[in-house]
Amino acid sequence: MADIDGKIDSKLDIGVTTGPIRGSRKIHVEGPGGIRVAMREIALTGDEPPVRVYDTSGPYTDPKAAINIAAGLPALRRDWILARGDVEAYDGRAVKPEDNGLKDGGPKAGAGLDAAASRNGRVQPFPNVVTRPLRARAGMNVSQMHYAKRGIITPEMEYVAIRENIGRAALKDKLARDGESWGAAIPDHVTPEFVRDEVARGRAIIPSNINHPETEPMAIGRNFLVKINANIGNSAVASSVAEEVDKMVWAIRWGADTVMDLSTGRNIHDTREWILRNSPVPIGTVPIYQALEKVGGIAEELTWEIFRDTLIEQAEQGVDYFTIHAGVRLPYIPLTAKRVTGIVSRGGSIMAKWCLAHHKESFLYEHFEDICEIMKAYDIAFSLGDGLRPGSIADANDEAQFAELFTLGELTKKAWEHDVQVMIEGPGHVPMHKIKENMDKQLAACGEAPFYTLGPLTTDIAPGYDHITSGIGAAMIGWYGTAMLCYVTPKEHLGLPDRDDVKVGVVTYKLAAHAADLAKGHPAAKVRDDALSKARFEFRWRDQFNLSLDPDTAEQYHDQTLPAEGAKTAHFCSMCGPKFCSMKITQEVRDFAAKQNQGAEGFLAASPGAAEQGAEQGMAEMSKLYKEKGNELYLPAAE
Amino acid sequence: MADIDGKIDSKLDIGVTTGPIRGSRKIHVEGPGGIRVAMREIALTGDEPPVRVYDTSGPYTDPKAAINIAAGLPALRRDWILARGDVEAYDGRAVKPEDNGLKDGGPKAGAGLDAAASRNGRVQPFPNVVTRPLRARAGMNVSQMHYAKRGIITPEMEYVAIRENIGRAALKDKLARDGESWGAAIPDHVTPEFVRDEVARGRAIIPSNINHPETEPMAIGRNFLVKINANIGNSAVASSVAEEVDKMVWAIRWGADTVMDLSTGRNIHDTREWILRNSPVPIGTVPIYQALEKVGGIAEELTWEIFRDTLIEQAEQGVDYFTIHAGVRLPYIPLTAKRVTGIVSRGGSIMAKWCLAHHKESFLYEHFEDICEIMKAYDIAFSLGDGLRPGSIADANDEAQFAELFTLGELTKKAWEHDVQVMIEGPGHVPMHKIKENMDKQLAACGEAPFYTLGPLTTDIAPGYDHITSGIGAAMIGWYGTAMLCYVTPKEHLGLPDRDDVKVGVVTYKLAAHAADLAKGHPAAKVRDDALSKARFEFRWRDQFNLSLDPDTAEQYHDQTLPAEGAKTAHFCSMCGPKFCSMKITQEVRDFAAKQNQGAEGFLAASPGAAEQGAEQGMAEMSKLYKEKGNELYLPAAE
Repeated sequence: MADIDGKIDSKLDIGVTTGPIRGSRKIHVEGPGGIRVAMREIALTGDEPPVRVYDTSGPYTDPKAAINIAAGLPALRRDWILARGDVEAYDGRAVKPEDNGLKDGGPKAGAGLDAAASRNGRVQPFPNVVTRPLRARAGMNVSQMHYAKRGIITPEMEYVAIRENIGRAALKDKLARDGESWGAAIPDHVTPEFVRDEVARGRAIIPSNINHPETEPMAIGRNFLVKINANIGNSAVASSVAEEVDKMVWAIRWGADTVMDLSTGRNIHDTREWILRNSPVPIGTVPIYQALEKVGGIAEELTWEIFRDTLIEQAEQGVDYFTIHAGVRLPYIPLTAKRVTGIVSRGGSIMAKWCLAHHKESFLYEHFEDICEIMKAYDIAFSLGDGLRPGSIADANDEAQFAELFTLGELTKKAWEHDVQVMIEGPGHVPMHKIKENMDKQLAACGEAPFYTLGPLTTDIAPGYDHITSGIGAAMIGWYGTAMLCYVTPKEHLGLPDRDDVKVGVVTYKLAAHAADLAKGHPAAKVRDDALSKARFEFRWRDQFNLSLDPDTAEQYHDQTLPAEGAKTAHFCSMCGPKFCSMKITQEVRDFAAKQNQGAEGFLAASPGAAEQGAEQGMAEMSKLYKEKGNELYLPAAE
Repeated sequence: MADIDGKIDSKLDIGVTTGPIRGSRKIHVEGPGGIRVAMREIALTGDEPPVRVYDTSGPYTDPKAAINIAAGLPALRRDWILARGDVEAYDGRAVKPEDNGLKDGGPKAGAGLDAAASRNGRVQPFPNVVTRPLRARAGMNVSQMHYAKRGIITPEMEYVAIRENIGRAALKDKLARDGESWGAAIPDHVTPEFVRDEVARGRAIIPSNINHPETEPMAIGRNFLVKINANIGNSAVASSVAEEVDKMVWAIRWGADTVMDLSTGRNIHDTREWILRNSPVPIGTVPIYQALEKVGGIAEELTWEIFRDTLIEQAEQGVDYFTIHAGVRLPYIPLTAKRVTGIVSRGGSIMAKWCLAHHKESFLYEHFEDICEIMKAYDIAFSLGDGLRPGSIADANDEAQFAELFTLGELTKKAWEHDVQVMIEGPGHVPMHKIKENMDKQLAACGEAPFYTLGPLTTDIAPGYDHITSGIGAAMIGWYGTAMLCYVTPKEHLGLPDRDDVKVGVVTYKLAAHAADLAKGHPAAKVRDDALSKARFEFRWRDQFNLSLDPDTAEQYHDQTLPAEGAKTAHFCSMCGPKFCSMKITQEVRDFAAKQNQGAEGFLAASPGAAEQGAEQGMAEMSKLYKEKGNELYLPAAE
């Protein structure tokens, strides 16, 4: 059953939630070359066919999988990577004390935070670190984009094609396209060739560092299902490694397609290692955070060399995408001076401070092609950071923001020349009427590279509810074409999310992404809505719970008022009670119509309009017939 | 302080929350003729001016008000009503046992519900019932629309004008219009004449039954602030009168502009009396629910006479608007037969069943003008119910739904001929790409009568989170022009909302309504966002909490990680810790720029582009200067 902490290694003090999600089971769909694509199948009662849904949860929800946090997940992709013959193992960079913030003069917590700060002593390193990581052989490029451009369909692309087709196979002839896709090109059926073509064109990415073979391949692009990202990570004042690994597993259980480890403070390196080795989804980071720790938090002491060394460090560990704030250029910084909230991106403000201190162009911008060389040697995707994104409604869509966006477009083209995969980060805080402009400008500036936005929040006045203020913006921008939505939790602006916040954030964003898929006219998105609504209408309560994004909460809410097991099959609920149920009355209407063996035509013939032409008698007859056939058509309430 | 149950009358066992909302105080703005318009003022620290916000909470948040649930609220509007000289007091209809469902053959709860059902014994009647209610004198019409059409500006309109102008006065010259209003006509400043004109044209309503003089007048219309409604009410299987009165007070505390009492089961009459006498916001009901109880739950036994008697009963109590499902016409019923979820409106399904049983046109439709006669004698507004609204994504925007909408348009015009105020109810479940069509069709069919929608939910797959699935749709349709958003709580589809659910529903809808106001370009909406963002940027934590829609939750979330009082003034938070705070770095950037006494121009001159033209030296000088002026500009963290 769900929600049971399992496989707790007491020595490590890291526990994660395992076991199937309530009412469903893990299945694997076979593909070419022995590929086995993980999915989740929800069995329904009666004659209803099971519903298959996209599954991000990895082996943790597979009762057959042996989970050992200290060993990490199986290396699903390792053979695929090696079979391509373009990589070499080499002696990796040795871990230094400063990688974990353990140098003298490291972070000092503020007053009153000692209890929290004490949690940041050195943690136990992951016991099975790969000491000889992989990289591309000299002159080689191991990016999925590189293969795609050369016409090669990789196993990763095969996997993605099967994974994305979920639901469509079941539809067969019933495939109905209904939506407004704003120029997207979502196919009826996803073929491996379609995946390859999208990756080659830069319209989709498959983040897949060759040193993170544990990933189950997934695509981010506007012609695929809308994805969501969950941010986790400790900070200098809160959280621990064990909590972060648990949050990662918890986030993917509820649907996070990728996870960003935004840890700061101590133990950044070790935390990341634990997360990567146990993550079946791509992991993203913001390397400048760690680089800053290495220079004692003094932005102006950052150098290209320290940054480069950090990229290599993380590349060898297996980070799948890097947020790089290379668009924060010196001349754009003063454009933020009159903003209400200035620069709110951590990476953006670090780079702004560096540029200002040296009065020089950003070293990220200057060394962009050097970064590309690293990215293509490991297949790390760029997530080009929006360091100048607006931090308030007042600052949305301003000159600073769009100046940076156009630079990101310029950098996208440069990365593509190196066959490096790219996505573009977006805002932030944007009122509804300014959201579409963000999408339109991004598509134009960045050649349809996938957009990856944080929300956006559609108002600033609801701290504590920013998962919702931003869920509104996320659903809308997802509809307009954003490929991945970075979640916001209820703690945004207030504190670091805990486990419960992570779940609420993930489910909120999952529903926003799904609402976007529906509105875009994704051919199979509606299958689940229809199955759930049908279950609801037919009082199949358990089916309704199981089909929902969060079966545990749905059932718990139901049981708060009607806990009896009999109520799970009752033809009413606590909102209306047994007599007022419109669903039940509708069924009676329908039953009656069926008994009369008459459709809309018959009714319309007996309508008031027709009545004026002499159908009055017919109406009286109909009424008599109804009374004869069962005036009291109430189904007996389950007793 | 907030969140303290006060004024509990133990004999009555009805307790409600009183006292100011955290960080703010009740104020009254004087208007002509001694009008005192209630508002809430949030005091800020430093030199920041206080922020005034719209206040729906009534006397409960006023420490000077004596709250006595058994006596009810003061009759704010009574003198205004009497001064118009067009009403008479008369001996009201006597309360009958069946008004409270106490007739033989009354509701029978299902099995396993006995514990809940037992709560539905007869409750204590409200002790101070007005036995001589008011009605229009013969031949008179007391509706606000009637006055408006005759050019009369009522005190209600004066009150609304002052109330709606909140924030605009503070703006003065800084009034900035930025938005996309989709054809709305929101003025820079609301005058009483503007209110009158909007009401006369039918574009706004001021629900104000002359027997509910306790209301603080408010307007619903697309050229005013977007409003929200909270549904409360017991059902045959859950809740009690005390809980419902408490929920009403709780809902308006957090921002509900109107409350609908959707009680079914027993004690409907008495529950409503308690709610009305203690409500400063308009109360809406669906009279068919009570009428159905009176005929033992058998829809086909409903008659116009029983329904009419129920309208009079509720009119005399003071209900401000009635949901009337007069658009569910016989010929439309079969249009629902092939739907996934048929008819989901309770009122709609009751009427469908009646029409079907008798094979006759709906008595609500046939007697529509008789209903108008009642409405104008008490000034009750129509909320024309969408009995055929879609109950699932699959059924959105179908023929049945729009057939009914066009009938509602026809009925709107009929009501307007009687000078009766009208709003139109809308869906329901609608994917994002079909939302705007609802608004456009409603505006066209119903002559800009205010639209009042339930959500809509943008996906069906998230029971337990339907406040969010619907909050997305609500924000969007509010932007497009919907005047009032009916909230959905997390319990939707699963159970009756409790107190916590009511608050979450209200705050979610308040933020959605505000996001809509922002996007429409309401002249003053942004004031609060800007004040909060500025407080956030300046680390005025308390101001940030107090300016938020839910200060209690905001502070509580913050304190989960940084509970120390010192952290309330700390220049960092638990998300990033003291060193990574982008806000702080931005401030340094800004300070540095100020010290140099140079703006964007100076920077741009020293930009890389300019550098190529020989400004390299200037950049080096700038860098040197920065180092001299305080390389380490970190503000000391509060210690």
